Amino acid sequence: MPANEPRGMFRPRVAITIGDINGIGPEVILKCLNDRRILNFFVPIIVGPISTLRTQAEVLGLKDLEFRVVGETPDAELEEETAIQVIDPVANHDPPVRIGQITETAGKIAMVCVGQATDMCLERTVDAMVTAPISKEAIARAGFNVPGHTEFIASRANTTGFTMMMVAEKLRVGLVTAHIPLIQVPRAITRTTIKEKIRIICDSLTNDFGVSRPRIAVLGLNPHAGDGGVIGTEERDIIIPAINEARSDGRMAYGPFAADGFFASRKYASYDAVLAMYHDQGLTPFKVLSFNSGINFTAGLPIVRTSPDHGTAFDIAGTNQASPDSMRNAIYAAIDIARRRTPGASKTEQAA
Amino acid sequence: MPANEPRGMFRPRVAITIGDINGIGPEVILKCLNDRRILNFFVPIIVGPISTLRTQAEVLGLKDLEFRVVGETPDAELEEETAIQVIDPVANHDPPVRIGQITETAGKIAMVCVGQATDMCLERTVDAMVTAPISKEAIARAGFNVPGHTEFIASRANTTGFTMMMVAEKLRVGLVTAHIPLIQVPRAITRTTIKEKIRIICDSLTNDFGVSRPRIAVLGLNPHAGDGGVIGTEERDIIIPAINEARSDGRMAYGPFAADGFFASRKYASYDAVLAMYHDQGLTPFKVLSFNSGINFTAGLPIVRTSPDHGTAFDIAGTNQASPDSMRNAIYAAIDIARRRTPGASKTEQAA
Repeated sequence: MPANEPRGMFRPRVAITIGDINGIGPEVILKCLNDRRILNFFVPIIVGPISTLRTQAEVLGLKDLEFRVVGETPDAELEEETAIQVIDPVANHDPPVRIGQITETAGKIAMVCVGQATDMCLERTVDAMVTAPISKEAIARAGFNVPGHTEFIASRANTTGFTMMMVAEKLRVGLVTAHIPLIQVPRAITRTTIKEKIRIICDSLTNDFGVSRPRIAVLGLNPHAGDGGVIGTEERDIIIPAINEARSDGRMAYGPFAADGFFASRKYASYDAVLAMYHDQGLTPFKVLSFNSGINFTAGLPIVRTSPDHGTAFDIAGTNQASPDSMRNAIYAAIDIARRRTPGASKTEQAA
Repeated sequence: MPANEPRGMFRPRVAITIGDINGIGPEVILKCLNDRRILNFFVPIIVGPISTLRTQAEVLGLKDLEFRVVGETPDAELEEETAIQVIDPVANHDPPVRIGQITETAGKIAMVCVGQATDMCLERTVDAMVTAPISKEAIARAGFNVPGHTEFIASRANTTGFTMMMVAEKLRVGLVTAHIPLIQVPRAITRTTIKEKIRIICDSLTNDFGVSRPRIAVLGLNPHAGDGGVIGTEERDIIIPAINEARSDGRMAYGPFAADGFFASRKYASYDAVLAMYHDQGLTPFKVLSFNSGINFTAGLPIVRTSPDHGTAFDIAGTNQASPDSMRNAIYAAIDIARRRTPGASKTEQAA
């Protein structure tokens, strides 16, 4: 046990999937774990090829990192050691790394690791998972026709009531629709869906973020939130009724707000979360305001899953330029949420 | 002539419309003009009720402001004086001001002033116009069924080839579509329209902003700019071909870029303008990044028209809290553009 571990604090087991081996995933994972102090707070289990990790650690000059390959489940006896547990789903085949390239092999390995980590979460052999970025094109080449991690994990966890949420220090943004073409957005915006997303976000704020009476700001769909019906009717016919029904159900939902003014005037500071209607409406201001240190969290799942908010960044892969900040924040968020969801963990924490 | 006027510099005549008299328009106009140094650079002609201006100046404690009501056209003899010329289209009827309220009277006056200023530009009795904010609901009550200034002025100037452009120090954002419901956006995104907007923006960058070989970044329509066709096909079928055709025509257009990553990673710094596909995609990051000091410019018109990028702000009208920064920037932008468009003006400027 490291000397400076906060005694008695619950250290969740967190599976970290390697992501696309040709991107910056392995680099940001290893940079985070190279600072041993982070091990005081959790037990990392990397899910990915050991050969890639060893090569990457050497290239980055991280010579103190030790790895211990374990079987299909974490080894409780190793939890107090500083060696990092690795579950290697392709143990007998060192995969070829092609830095910065889109390959079928990388896509396949990425998804096999995500699948395995999801199963570990579902079987409770780990308490949470953090996913390094994958390439949608690479996974498509490997035959995985899913829009992304979120939908794949939700489907494997047999859950439909989930929502993608971006989380930064003072801003949380949930989405009604995510990775669908813009032309499909208006018909996907229904009263039921909006109410459901408000419910999922409210529950998550309470259970996962410890907010006791969460306040949610709901954005409009149209420019100027429809300007009183002059620019589109979805606000009047769908969004406002959904907000009113959510309030009747006891949830503090407000809006709809025009996205541009809402973010520009920093109105979000008065709310615990923002519900955007579609991807670019929520993610563009989120990423601009969070300065690339935000993270992605899938609210509403039976398991805890976070990820950094950046992609594979093939253009800078292999150059030791990637910042581990977002990955580190994703790990800390997973730890915090796992603790809040674990009965007795917070009590232990208070006792410590 | 003020003692510190840069001698020989062309001082354009700029009509400033009062906007909604119940909003912050009159306040921000008078705050700008109260600093006499700005008069070194242009000749202001306010188009609006003199009674509103006098009352507002008194309420704000701007006692040094002098006004001189002129007829339907500016008075050249007054140009070297410090009194500000006012064209009052409702001279014999002091309109009732109802601070913070939406009234038919305010809507009507606002639009009469915009119409008159537009005509003055078209008749070349002024060199440019700057419009203070109007309320869409107020102008609708007065029977003006237009989405906003931009479309009204373009129609009066008999122009269809225009585009709304937001301008800040290091960021210019043009829109393919503006004040239409989101559901209508995908069908409004055509190859012809995108190419036309690229052309208008390129021409404006050259003629109005003095950029010699402008580079335009074009955003995608769908999340992740369609992710290679996985999330929507408009990039592949419409936007990429439009970009390629624009390049064949000799215009330096690039993209399509995913909006979230493009703004978050400050990629826009490498381009002279960004072309967004719809209102919230372009305006939300623009307003967040420009910290409310950006301005709105209508590119492609035969006349010069700018405006602040804020609205009537009824909630703070009459409380002396409104910042004149955006209005001041709108005035300076109008002056700069009017100078660039005036033959010989820039030569005079260099000689000064």
